[in-house]
Formats: sequence, structure tokens, C-alpha cells
Amino acid sequence: MNNIRKLTYEILEIGNKQHMLGRVIDIFLIALISLNVLFVILETLPSISADNHLWFHRFEVFSVLVFTLEYIARVWSAVEDDERNHHQPFWGRIRYMLTPMALIDLIVILPFYLSMVITGIDLRFMRVLRLLRVFKLTRYSSSMSLLLQVLHRESRSISAALFVLFMLIIVASSLIYFAEHKAQPDVFSSIPAAMWWSIVTMTTVGYGDVIPITAMGKIMASIISIMSLGIVALPAGLLASGFSEALRQRRRTYEKMVNLAIQDGV
Amino acid sequence: MNNIRKLTYEILEIGNKQHMLGRVIDIFLIALISLNVLFVILETLPSISADNHLWFHRFEVFSVLVFTLEYIARVWSAVEDDERNHHQPFWGRIRYMLTPMALIDLIVILPFYLSMVITGIDLRFMRVLRLLRVFKLTRYSSSMSLLLQVLHRESRSISAALFVLFMLIIVASSLIYFAEHKAQPDVFSSIPAAMWWSIVTMTTVGYGDVIPITAMGKIMASIISIMSLGIVALPAGLLASGFSEALRQRRRTYEKMVNLAIQDGV
Amino acid sequence: MNNIRKLTYEILEIGNKQHMLGRVIDIFLIALISLNVLFVILETLPSISADNHLWFHRFEVFSVLVFTLEYIARVWSAVEDDERNHHQPFWGRIRYMLTPMALIDLIVILPFYLSMVITGIDLRFMRVLRLLRVFKLTRYSSSMSLLLQVLHRESRSISAALFVLFMLIIVASSLIYFAEHKAQPDVFSSIPAAMWWSIVTMTTVGYGDVIPITAMGKIMASIISIMSLGIVALPAGLLASGFSEALRQRRRTYEKMVNLAIQDGV
Amino acid sequence: MNNIRKLTYEILEIGNKQHMLGRVIDIFLIALISLNVLFVILETLPSISADNHLWFHRFEVFSVLVFTLEYIARVWSAVEDDERNHHQPFWGRIRYMLTPMALIDLIVILPFYLSMVITGIDLRFMRVLRLLRVFKLTRYSSSMSLLLQVLHRESRSISAALFVLFMLIIVASSLIYFAEHKAQPDVFSSIPAAMWWSIVTMTTVGYGDVIPITAMGKIMASIISIMSLGIVALPAGLLASGFSEALRQRRRTYEKMVNLAIQDGV
Repeated sequence: MNNIRKLTYEILEIGNKQHMLGRVIDIFLIALISLNVLFVILETLPSISADNHLWFHRFEVFSVLVFTLEYIARVWSAVEDDERNHHQPFWGRIRYMLTPMALIDLIVILPFYLSMVITGIDLRFMRVLRLLRVFKLTRYSSSMSLLLQVLHRESRSISAALFVLFMLIIVASSLIYFAEHKAQPDVFSSIPAAMWWSIVTMTTVGYGDVIPITAMGKIMASIISIMSLGIVALPAGLLASGFSEALRQRRRTYEKMVNLAIQDGV
Repeated sequence: MNNIRKLTYEILEIGNKQHMLGRVIDIFLIALISLNVLFVILETLPSISADNHLWFHRFEVFSVLVFTLEYIARVWSAVEDDERNHHQPFWGRIRYMLTPMALIDLIVILPFYLSMVITGIDLRFMRVLRLLRVFKLTRYSSSMSLLLQVLHRESRSISAALFVLFMLIIVASSLIYFAEHKAQPDVFSSIPAAMWWSIVTMTTVGYGDVIPITAMGKIMASIISIMSLGIVALPAGLLASGFSEALRQRRRTYEKMVNLAIQDGV
Repeated sequence: MNNIRKLTYEILEIGNKQHMLGRVIDIFLIALISLNVLFVILETLPSISADNHLWFHRFEVFSVLVFTLEYIARVWSAVEDDERNHHQPFWGRIRYMLTPMALIDLIVILPFYLSMVITGIDLRFMRVLRLLRVFKLTRYSSSMSLLLQVLHRESRSISAALFVLFMLIIVASSLIYFAEHKAQPDVFSSIPAAMWWSIVTMTTVGYGDVIPITAMGKIMASIISIMSLGIVALPAGLLASGFSEALRQRRRTYEKMVNLAIQDGV
Repeated sequence: MNNIRKLTYEILEIGNKQHMLGRVIDIFLIALISLNVLFVILETLPSISADNHLWFHRFEVFSVLVFTLEYIARVWSAVEDDERNHHQPFWGRIRYMLTPMALIDLIVILPFYLSMVITGIDLRFMRVLRLLRVFKLTRYSSSMSLLLQVLHRESRSISAALFVLFMLIIVASSLIYFAEHKAQPDVFSSIPAAMWWSIVTMTTVGYGDVIPITAMGKIMASIISIMSLGIVALPAGLLASGFSEALRQRRRTYEKMVNLAIQDGV
């Protein structure tokens, strides 16, 4: 029994490249998650959804069953992890269940079972929860986990840049509100409404649904959009340089490992 | 008396981490400033403003009282600062009152008292002055002061990039004016009007309220928007690299201080 | 005969700078390709196309003849390349014909001959194939081949950034769909329809044809556009830094070669 | 006489900081150029232009006189420059007159004299020539000349990036033309017309005047706008890094000069 549990753990969590079965299961799960995301998206197309309602439902039941089995297998074999205590079958598993990845695994299957017990849950809300399955891919994507690492490491400087951006948004919204409120009382009805304009302008999206028309408003908008060029580049620049730095570091680590392996071989 | 003044100075200005009271007051003031900003924003929402007029007024009175006390305490205890001369109680305080942060502290409370004496001040102008309270947060935000440092240090290169941008805006506005004035005399009525188009295009906001329609105008707009990609990236790039450089420097300084502290401990 | 083949190979493939004829042919081919691209573009202008139909056709026949001759000459002389086996006239040429550049050379002349045999091919599809001739310029553009190199070398990190971007697009589309579907059932009719909005917003193009109107949709759009500032900068930053790194490397290699040549001369 | 010529040369060209008169003349000329630019801009405002026609004309005559005097003085004293041969009063001056800065000096005054001889010159064209006076500021702006230096030094890599951008614009325009021509024959009437869409989209300006409406067109637009994020960042990134590199270099050169001056002083 313990051998099977060890094997389950190795196949599911370690991503052991020697295990042929581990790779097959990984590919199967990635394909299933991708199909799930694709199907939630396609289901919103009336032309496709109408005729294939039954098939969508069957696929959903199948997916939930697989994800439930996967979840049970992961929780059951979690105690094989040396970092979680071996000899604490109950608390070790509870601790595993509280990790972010395990919580996502639970959240994406729970609604299905809840909808059987409780009736009248909003279908659209159910779909949002089903789409969260896309985050199950994080486990298999090294780039996603790298980005999360970078966000964690650079969190101080990025939040500093975001704070500056936030203050500029407040000041910009207030200024444009006081400049345009009289000329366009419907569009710039309040500072929160003016914030929509500020964000659309400062991110340079510029839909054109809300535009200053007074001379004063246009002068302010000009100054704000030129200033925001620099402010908005701050978080983007910090994230990009952090990401490329982390990629370079990982490559170096990988090369070092290869070199060590070669030396050991000698 | 002098002991109390010294304590007041330490609590308010130094941000001493040992003083429990200093931290409590800091958090209280940050919360009060944030609430002030939030309330000025919310007051512009008719649905909220209508019913809670009295509460907004009471909060305003309370805030001004606290900020006034804070201002008096800061000015009174300013002579404790060694950089400002101890033995010059009057001129030392005057010099403190002329620092940017102290001026902001004064400006955000003054209108309240003025409105009691003089009647008929524009309410909307009063609100702008009240929103300036957001800048009181600068004292507590290391990222904001870091940005100001970077702006100061890189001011020469950033103003150089802005001058180039400014010349390109003038040339672009003139060219588009001469190309489009005949076809759209209302929209491109003058070069200042064409400047609005230039800035909206060159910052890539692109609202779409003013668009060239002649072939010549479109060719010019194409060249201008491709050229501006490079010119507009200059100030943004300089600011971003300056900011991330300053962040790295501060981190190194901090590490050095920690190392010194460890060595001293030994 | 073999001497002529060797000469043909040197003139066409090596771009030998000593050969006066090689340079003349290069310039002639670059001009012909550029004219071809220009003419396909001009042919879509009704005012030009109507009167000059015959000239366009004559130029097309002439171009195809030249490109056919070029193609035959390249295939015939391909065996001169030491990397492809000299002594295998048939398989060496087949292998050459399967290289990307040779395939492009074939694809851009084939439709002309096919249209003689088969009637009723869509004219517009023919034009797309003719426009592919622009890619024949890649052979002569060191910057284009440099970019392809950078894309190849940085493919892992760029695809990592694109994967993150792709996940953000899916999540953003779903969120905005659930927020706006009820208010604007025609515009945000499905998640694929909402993807158009996501991409237009996240790349900061912001046409303004699809805009959230509910408060919830606007809040989500604000968060998405601020987040995308950082995520979208990732692939751009990686490509730009990779490209400038490759340019610097090439300059260094070139300088080294010059130095070696000088030392050899001594 | 020669002493006066030498003095004129030093005052006008060298920008000698010891000469009080040189600095006064510099400031006067910068102010006059700036006022000229401002007045050409203001003259296009009907409300201002109508009442002050006479004043605008007087200022124009005065400016042209000053610029003519400046031009004559510069040409006359040009032979003092050691690089241009002292002893060749005629050819030395001709060579000076053919430098870019001297040509600009001539072009901005010539139209005024021409309009006296020839009647019926287009007034709008005259204004464009008058606005060229803004380029006279280049002489006094170190940032502008620095940018020109960077453009010159990085010209190879920037033109490489522009070539890639140019090819992407052609391919993008053709693809969107073939996808959208049938659905919107008026808007995407030809490939040149589709180029307007390509440039507006790829620079992320996104006016929204031309938008794909077919599913195929939207898919292509999505791919193009994501691809262009990277391609468009290339020239901007190269220019920005070149500019900041040049700024750093200049600062180092300046520091070295200061150090040398200090050592000499010792």
C-alpha cells in the first residue's frame, strides 16, 4: 500500500521524467484542463451551445470525476513529501490541503457537487468558478511560477511604483473633474466617474468614450498623458527587468547543474 | 517643557520605531489623510453626498482640527532639529514653515479658516485645495520621496528628452494643421487645436475625436506616430532606469547598514 | 560547365563583394522584388489598376520569368555548397529545395503556372501568394535574419511571456463577459467576442468599438488594463533586449575580424 | 576691422561664457526664436489674429531684420574658424553657407524677401517655412544635438528595426485587406488604405475610425497587434538605450574635464 502511495506521489507531484506513466498522466491532465477552458469558452457561443448541450454536460461530469480522483490521490499521497511530516497522516494532509495549488484543485470541483445539493445557484457564477481551472496549468508552467516568483521578489518596488501610479490617478481624476464637470455634467458626473477616464488615458488605451472638451480640460489631459508616460512605465519596467533577470539566473543555475553532472560523471 | 518638545519632535518627525506612541500617531494620521481623500471623492457622488451632508461637514471640522494641532506641534517642535538653529526660536521656525512639506501642511488647512472669514469662495476650488491633502502622504511614503529624488537627479536628462518631445509636438501640430486645415476647418481650426491631436496621437492614447482624413494628413500622421514611438520612449526609459537604479542603491545601502550593525554587535 | 555552375553559385548565394556581376544581380533582384511588392499594393487602387491592367500583367509575366530563372539557377548550382553533398546531384538538390528560403522562392512563382493550367482560382488568394515575394528580401536583409536568430535564441523566454499573456487574456475575457453580458448582450455576446475586447484593451490599442458600461465592468477593465501594462511589456522587453544584445555581439565579432585581418596583413 | 570680426565670431559661434555680451545676445536670440514660433502658432487662432494683424506683421519684419543681420554677421565672421581656411575669404564663406545650420538660417529669412519680389505665393506654405525657425534652437540645445548624434551612431541598428517594422506593416496591411475588403469595401478599399489601419493599430494609437468587423479580420488584427508589441518596441528601445548611454558618456567626459582642471589648478 505504501509503495503505491509513494508511486502515486512520484507520478503526480515530482514530475519524474523517468516514469513513462508520469509523463502520460501529465499530458493527459494538461489536455483535459485545456479542453475544459476551451469548452467553457465555446459554451458561451449560442450557435455551438444550443446543439451540443448534452455533450458539454457529459464532458463536464467526466472532467469533474477525473479532477476529483486527482485531488483525492494528491491529498492521499501528500504525506510522502518529506517537508510535510510523514508521521502525521491527518495534520500533514490538512496542511497540504491549505496550500494555494490544493485549494485551487478543490475550488474547481466543489461547485459541481454543491449544485447537486443546493438548487438555484447562478449558472454564470458557476462558469467563472469552472474557468478557474486554467490556474491548474500553473503547476505545469515554469514561466507562470517564474512570474509569481518575480512578483514576490520585486513586490516592494512594484508596489512602490503602483502607489505612485495610484496617487497620480487620484490627482488626475480630481483635476479633470473640476475642469470638465460643468461642461459635461453627465460624463464627468463625479470623481469616481472621472477615474474611468484617468485610467483609460493613463494606460494609453484611449477608447474615446469620455473625452475632455473644454480648453482647460484638454490642457490638463495633455499634461497628465505626458506625465503618465513616465509613471506608467515604472511598474512595467521593473517587472520586465525582474523577469529577464530571473530567466538569466535560471539559465545559469541550469548550466551549473549540467557542469556538475559532467564532472561527477568524470 | 523642553522634554515634551523633544518628545513631540521625535514622535512626529523622526518616525522613531521604538516609540509605540509615534507609530500609533503615524498610523492614525495616515488613516485620517486617506479618509479625507476618500471623502472628497465620495462627496462628488450625488447619491452619497445628498444624505450625509452633515456627517461630511463634521468629519471635515474634525480633520481640520487634527491637522491644525499637527501643524502647530510640528512648528513648535521644529527647533529641536539640529540642522535648524536651536537658539533661534523665531527664525528657525520661520525657516521650517517655508519647507515644501510644511507649506503643504498649511495650505490644506488654511482654506477652512479663510472660508469662515470671507464668504463667497468657490466651493469647487475649496475641494481642489482639500484634495491636496493626498500629498501629506508623501512624508510617509518612501517610494514617493524616492521618485522625487530620481526626478531631481535625472532632471537634466529628463528635461532634455522633454525638450525634444516639445519640439516634435510643435512641428507635428504645424504639419498636420497645414495638411488638414482646409479639409476640416472646424477640427483643425488652429495650431493650438492641432496640438491636442498631436499629444493624443504621440502618447498613443488615440481617442479618435480628431482624425486626419486627407491622404497627405494620413501620411504625416503615420510618420509622426512612428517617430513618436522612439521620442516618447526617451523620458519614460530615463525615468524607469533611474528609478530601478535608485531602488537597487537603497537596497545595497540597507544591506551595508545591517552588516555594520552585525559587526558592531560582535 | 562546372566552372559556370561554380560562378553561378558564387554570384547568387555567397554575395561575393569582389564579383561586380554578383552585386549588379543582387541590386537588380532587390529592385525587382520591391517593385513586385509595390505593384501588388498599387493594383488594389481602382484608379491605378483600371488603366494599366496590361502593364501590370506584362510586368507580372516578366517578374515570374526572372524569378523562375533565378530559382532554376539556384537549384542547379546548389550542389556547389560544401555542406550539401557534392557528389549527390539529385538528393543534394532536393535537400536544398526543402530549405525555407528555397520553398519561398518556389511558392511565389508556382501560382502563376498553376493558374495557366487550372482556371477559376480566386484572384485575391493569388495576390496574397504574390505578396509573399516580400519575404525574398530576407535573403538580403541582415536585420531580418538577425531578428529571426533572436526569436530562435530567446524562443523559450518569449513563449513563456506569451503563455502568461495568453492566460491573462482568457481570464480577462471571462471576467468582462460575466460583468457585461447582461448589460450589452450584443457586444459581449460570448467569451470569444469578449476576447476581441481583451486584446484591443491589453495591447492598449483601444479602438473604442467595444467598451464596458457597467460599474463592475469598468472596475474590472481598469484592473485588467493596469495589470496588462506589466504583462504586455514582458515579450516586448525580452525581444528588444535580445535584439540589441545580438547587434552588440555582431559588432564585436566584426571588429575582431577586422583586427585579425590587420594582424594578418602585418 | 579684423578684431571686430574675431569678436563677432566669438560672440556668435563659440558661446564664450566670459563674454557678457555673448550671453546677452544668445538669450535675446533664443527669446526671439521662441516668440517667433509662438506667434506663428497664435496667428492661426482667428480670435487673436483678427485684431492684431498689424502687430504680427511688425514683429515679423523686425524678426527678419534681426535674423538677416545675424546671418550676415555669421557668414562674414565664418572665416575666423580655423577649420575653414582663413586665407580663402570667398570659398571659406561658401563652404560655411552650405552647412546644415547655415542653410536653415537662410531658409527661414529668404521667403520674406521672395514674397516682396514675387506675388501670389501661398500664405500657408510661407507659414510652414517660418515655423522652421524652431530648428534654429538646435544650436543652443545640447539635448537636440545629442539626439542627432545618437541617431547618427545607432543609425544602422535603428534602420534595421525600421526595416522589420516596414515589412510587418506591408504584410499586416495585405492580410487585413484580403480579410476585410469584401465586408467593408469603402473602408478597406485598397492596400494603401489598409496601411492607415495597420500603422494606427501597430503603434497602438487605435483611433477607432477603421476597425475590422469580420471574424477573420479580428483574429488577424489580434495576432498583428500582439506581434507589433515586440516589433514596435525595437526602434524605441534602441533609441532610448542609445540616448541614455550617450548621456552617461557625456557626464563622464565632463567629470574628467573637471578633474583635469582641478589637477591643473594644483
